[in-house]
Amino acid sequence: MIVRDIKDIIGTEREVEGPGWTSRRMLLKKDGMGFSFHETIIPAGAELHLWYKYHLEAVYCVAGNGSIEDLATGETHQIYDGVMYALNNNDRHILRGGTEDMRLICSFNPPVTGREVHDKDGAYLPDDS
Amino acid sequence: MIVRDIKDIIGTEREVEGPGWTSRRMLLKKDGMGFSFHETIIPAGAELHLWYKYHLEAVYCVAGNGSIEDLATGETHQIYDGVMYALNNNDRHILRGGTEDMRLICSFNPPVTGREVHDKDGAYLPDDS
Repeated sequence: MIVRDIKDIIGTEREVEGPGWTSRRMLLKKDGMGFSFHETIIPAGAELHLWYKYHLEAVYCVAGNGSIEDLATGETHQIYDGVMYALNNNDRHILRGGTEDMRLICSFNPPVTGREVHDKDGAYLPDDS
Repeated sequence: MIVRDIKDIIGTEREVEGPGWTSRRMLLKKDGMGFSFHETIIPAGAELHLWYKYHLEAVYCVAGNGSIEDLATGETHQIYDGVMYALNNNDRHILRGGTEDMRLICSFNPPVTGREVHDKDGAYLPDDS
């Protein structure tokens, strides 16, 4: 059994930041669960162009608000506490922070290793390990 | 892209209840993500004896409190907002509600189909579909 407190992750190598996002990796590939599991904070007003070409991702909002624009359809969905979105087609999207920081709980398949950076398309590169 | 609001799941077949738990399945096997993704509410004072023999599960608490007893070690871990536990060894455990209902975000591998019930050991049977 693995037990982790987010307080012990903040400020370590399991907390990764970029422009408009902070991600705390509660579970990575090396934890052997077959998925990774993250808490991600999107500050109010942020805008992220993302395209996880090599990963499926589910995201569940438990606080704050924002929106997601599906670039395949042009549709924008509001995000708030209780809304989940799943990128089941490696969907290209724009994630926007709202009026309050969003707290998102995320699961990735295949699991993120922790070494990824976003490429120019907003993708994480596939794991070559 | 799949977008679901928990309000649209409550009261449907995607909301499953048993003694001491209510689970809302945001993503099931049929959603094709390779994991399932649930919100589970454990009422204050509940006690659940669980043993997911056929599934790995990660659980992240985002509200309320309780505890988990690891039956392999006898150790009890407190659960509160910001604590995650992962049953990476199909760990037998007792999950106890605390003084406030716990709101847990859960991911299962392999994904739950939605047809499972807990057997006498607190396991979900493996999917035979």
